[in-house]
Amino acid sequence: MPDTEILTSLPTFSDVEAAAKTLRGITVRTPLLESPLLNAEIGGRVLVKPEMLQRTGSFKFRGASNRIRNLTPEENARGVLAFSSGNHGQGVAAAAHAAGVAATLVMPATAPAIKVARCRAWGAEAILHDGDRKSMEARAQALAGERGLVLIPPYEDVFVIAGQGTAGLELVQQSREADAALDSILVPCSGGGLTAGITLAAEALSPGTDIHPVEPEGFDDTARSLAAGRRLENAPGTPSICDALVVPIPGALTFAINAARTGPGLSVADSDIAPAAVALFSHFKLVAEPSGAIALAAILSGAFDVRGKTVAVVASGGNVDPAMYARLMAEGSGQSSVRSG
Amino acid sequence: MPDTEILTSLPTFSDVEAAAKTLRGITVRTPLLESPLLNAEIGGRVLVKPEMLQRTGSFKFRGASNRIRNLTPEENARGVLAFSSGNHGQGVAAAAHAAGVAATLVMPATAPAIKVARCRAWGAEAILHDGDRKSMEARAQALAGERGLVLIPPYEDVFVIAGQGTAGLELVQQSREADAALDSILVPCSGGGLTAGITLAAEALSPGTDIHPVEPEGFDDTARSLAAGRRLENAPGTPSICDALVVPIPGALTFAINAARTGPGLSVADSDIAPAAVALFSHFKLVAEPSGAIALAAILSGAFDVRGKTVAVVASGGNVDPAMYARLMAEGSGQSSVRSG
Repeated sequence: MPDTEILTSLPTFSDVEAAAKTLRGITVRTPLLESPLLNAEIGGRVLVKPEMLQRTGSFKFRGASNRIRNLTPEENARGVLAFSSGNHGQGVAAAAHAAGVAATLVMPATAPAIKVARCRAWGAEAILHDGDRKSMEARAQALAGERGLVLIPPYEDVFVIAGQGTAGLELVQQSREADAALDSILVPCSGGGLTAGITLAAEALSPGTDIHPVEPEGFDDTARSLAAGRRLENAPGTPSICDALVVPIPGALTFAINAARTGPGLSVADSDIAPAAVALFSHFKLVAEPSGAIALAAILSGAFDVRGKTVAVVASGGNVDPAMYARLMAEGSGQSSVRSG
Repeated sequence: MPDTEILTSLPTFSDVEAAAKTLRGITVRTPLLESPLLNAEIGGRVLVKPEMLQRTGSFKFRGASNRIRNLTPEENARGVLAFSSGNHGQGVAAAAHAAGVAATLVMPATAPAIKVARCRAWGAEAILHDGDRKSMEARAQALAGERGLVLIPPYEDVFVIAGQGTAGLELVQQSREADAALDSILVPCSGGGLTAGITLAAEALSPGTDIHPVEPEGFDDTARSLAAGRRLENAPGTPSICDALVVPIPGALTFAINAARTGPGLSVADSDIAPAAVALFSHFKLVAEPSGAIALAAILSGAFDVRGKTVAVVASGGNVDPAMYARLMAEGSGQSSVRSG
């Protein structure tokens, strides 16, 4: 897409406000939580926006719902399609189910049986694709064309970005109610949709607040792209336990929003995730998946210096199986005591 | 206390309304959560009030805060005292800290070091008592007399009951916003303060809703007392993993409220707790302590037939250490798959 076309199609704060109206009564207004004991330990004030409490266990339900609730009647009758076995796929399946719209999900044939079952529990058609991500994407697009389905992208879409932005709108409103003047908001970042949406809300309502995308080490494409002023790709081959944050390059739409207003980006090692997941467990009683703990991990690891500051972190999701979670708890609590407050 | 004296001192719905005003901006307005996938599995509609998201990880912060915010200036200057190493103690310590009031906690000498440390982290004085519960209670009362401290009881107090009732006020308001006409509310029950407070709110705002206290097997003193029409004690010696629900006999004040308006009481075996804790993990991303999972356990175990009904359950707390929690997850998920939604 040429730059001029991108600029005329960028969402603005009014799209976020419209999304908030659309999603009223559909999405959960997740609370903004705080632990005085954690604040005392780290010497700063941290507010947590727990999007694992969102329907389907992640913020993705916001963007998917906003896209689906803005379909034309014709599109509504035909249905939607997404390719994802992860949080976006769940979000689309559940959002379509709630809206009474048929959904088709193209998933890798290697997806765990439980994810396929969950998708079908939402009434979606699950099509298993045997092949790499590129061929899966091509098949999904071909299928959407053949069947006249609306493809719902995970972040390159005005309605999706605006929908994710409602988390930021709530966060800023709730921080005011808590008399918290936010210095910064730390946001888990993959394709950049959540970061972009929250940026639109914060820019309008809390212009003195910095937005920092947080990525796993090896997947810091957004941080490097923000520094370079253009979209850079990750080197292939690096693994991360943050399986929801491994998109190879920032989105074009999302980067056009984020480049001018966010940064610098922060990155976090896999080994710093478990202590943050334990802190979310012990201080907030929240189940975080590894990706969902990364913004708090940026603080606890020292990648972001919180001392003397008031900072909101988005805990973006909690879709983790019990065995993986038990390992995170064991790894993150080690021999040290775990406190609550 | 003779019955007439109890009746004139009973809290009413207006005390709950006053508590809600007092606690505005102090307590967390916890959300009311719902999982369509869980609803489909069980054939009923379940709404969860997650009080583990309350400050200190349990509803106890509500009652303690309401009591403390209603101290006279003289009492405020002298300070408060409680005897508890559990959720009530944490609630009192944190509520006193937030109000700038000195707190003293009398705790058993056998209390885990972490609980003593947590109490001190809130700035409270921890006095370790070597002796049984009765002698600890006597010492606490003597100490309160000597030092002029206000003893904050865990449930036998108008302000404490009214404070817990704010959870019910929110729950009923939130269920209306969700277009849910509640057939029943299931409430974890020990001394009966949370049940009584919620009963006052529901009676006023949702008179068609039944309230069912839920207790561990062997600690069903409230269920048996409701059936008998008088306060009955538990047989000593039975253990339960629901360590927050092991009070031996209903409170006099709380029973005076609950006897006329709640029941029948339900009881749940320890072995039914873990699957409910796993459901709160997988469907809601909430960390529940065993006691906090008991109301949902009443539904999942079949003790309460939810089919075709709309029911709210209070998840009262989440103070559980990671090792115990990992065991609950392993026990509750067994070989079966765990889904999310």
